[in-house]
Amino acid sequence: MDFKTVYSGLSSKVEEALLAYFDDSIDIVEPLKSAMRYSVLIGGKRLRPVLTLSANKLLDGDSDEVMPIACAMEMIHTYSLIHDDLPAMDDDDLRRGKPTNHKVFGEGMAVLAGDGLYSYAFEIMLRNSKKYPQNINGHLNSISQMANGAGVNGMVGGQCMDLSCEDNEDAGKEELAFIHKNKTGALITSALLAGLYVCNPTKEQIHAVSQYGHDVGLAFQIVDDILDIVGDQEKLGKPIGSDEKSKKLTYPSLYGMEASRRKVEELYHSACEHISIFGNKSDFLKELAAVMSKRDS
Amino acid sequence: MDFKTVYSGLSSKVEEALLAYFDDSIDIVEPLKSAMRYSVLIGGKRLRPVLTLSANKLLDGDSDEVMPIACAMEMIHTYSLIHDDLPAMDDDDLRRGKPTNHKVFGEGMAVLAGDGLYSYAFEIMLRNSKKYPQNINGHLNSISQMANGAGVNGMVGGQCMDLSCEDNEDAGKEELAFIHKNKTGALITSALLAGLYVCNPTKEQIHAVSQYGHDVGLAFQIVDDILDIVGDQEKLGKPIGSDEKSKKLTYPSLYGMEASRRKVEELYHSACEHISIFGNKSDFLKELAAVMSKRDS
Repeated sequence: MDFKTVYSGLSSKVEEALLAYFDDSIDIVEPLKSAMRYSVLIGGKRLRPVLTLSANKLLDGDSDEVMPIACAMEMIHTYSLIHDDLPAMDDDDLRRGKPTNHKVFGEGMAVLAGDGLYSYAFEIMLRNSKKYPQNINGHLNSISQMANGAGVNGMVGGQCMDLSCEDNEDAGKEELAFIHKNKTGALITSALLAGLYVCNPTKEQIHAVSQYGHDVGLAFQIVDDILDIVGDQEKLGKPIGSDEKSKKLTYPSLYGMEASRRKVEELYHSACEHISIFGNKSDFLKELAAVMSKRDS
Repeated sequence: MDFKTVYSGLSSKVEEALLAYFDDSIDIVEPLKSAMRYSVLIGGKRLRPVLTLSANKLLDGDSDEVMPIACAMEMIHTYSLIHDDLPAMDDDDLRRGKPTNHKVFGEGMAVLAGDGLYSYAFEIMLRNSKKYPQNINGHLNSISQMANGAGVNGMVGGQCMDLSCEDNEDAGKEELAFIHKNKTGALITSALLAGLYVCNPTKEQIHAVSQYGHDVGLAFQIVDDILDIVGDQEKLGKPIGSDEKSKKLTYPSLYGMEASRRKVEELYHSACEHISIFGNKSDFLKELAAVMSKRDS
């Protein structure tokens, strides 16, 4: 099967599983449920849950066992986008071509929709872990990885630095490296490791997947920065040029466009090398690294 | 020992443990760390962590084992206050007599400080659980209880209803019951149960503590509503009359002051009755119920 077919097969399964977490049988008070559902089901590439499922497959994991973790991952990602789009943060009106959460539900409800998704993600993972008492340590490691990646030494820490740098003209390469590593990278690496941990991996396997995560995470972020300069607004579903307008710290603004493209290429090769220890089971993640480095949306 | 001595002994231990989570050895990026610490260490009665420790003591639990859970509880409570105080929510400038988080650190950082505390709470509990592999189920139940109590069918759900009712003139007793049960009650009950679960309680014990939590949680909230009308601004550390000004749904506004006081008295007696199955080990929680029902701040 070719890459696209496999990817869309995985992301469809994620889509279906996500839908079930918001169907009519789920009792969550309105308009909280609608606000949470709106942002989760608005679409997107489902990259992070696909990473969770694919890392799990490296060690022949059970996709039923890991699917709730993959969905929780997407909910955590969505919560971070909702809070990031708030007027007090990035103040974005559009996300994936649609009005952002606070534009539809109001700021207060958007804060709660984010909070709710984060809680719901942990509830889902914890409930799931109880179904696998024989593998409780695998699940605990997976849930812990998620908490770390989303937390103060991960995503939230990165968002803090990002916010601080908006008004800091002295911010430079060190701050940008911190933002890339934490704001986006930590969650991408955690998405992979959360899927892997369920299979109780060796230290060597954890290291390989962490490195792959670091490389594709950084490449992903640099490509994001590049696309904000040369991307196609329609394909991206959001306006371009916003980084320059807000004087945001980006890889191209600090290192130039050519060096940025070269870095992406290097990271792609490094990612593939790290993941090679899994033999041909790593083919999908290698192709995914290629696609992430060459994407135009 | 008298009640006050025991209470202040417990809350001092909580204070000390909370401090350690923000000391110099803890690596969290600034100003996130300062923003999180500011609201956690600003004071307060530490009621919820004291409930966690006391419920744990009902079954002779180990206070070292449960202390991280008690601290996580206080962090979750603090996160909810920070988000609740935001301009888009309750828009409060003062909390415990001090400027609210967003007044000091800005709105964006206050959102992140709340997000960070919530993450940190789970990280702390998960890390702690790994120290007790022989009691992993007790810890998992405790962490799950916390996630449920703070989540969409608990605190966040209650906050959603509270926010929706601000603009809804038809909101009445049903909505208020939902808010009381979820916004405050769920976390108070979870604070107790999270402490109890570590000791692997029986169903009967879980039921008794749940009922006690329901009763003191509701009494606590009604007293809060009463104090907003007849309380002493200085003792409370916040302006009174804010509920009436914002036309907030409260117990006294719907049932009258006398019925409200009577309800608190009833709940106090019911709480004590439920917890009696623990014999004289329940003395402290009974006295705590009395104090919570008769408090003036």
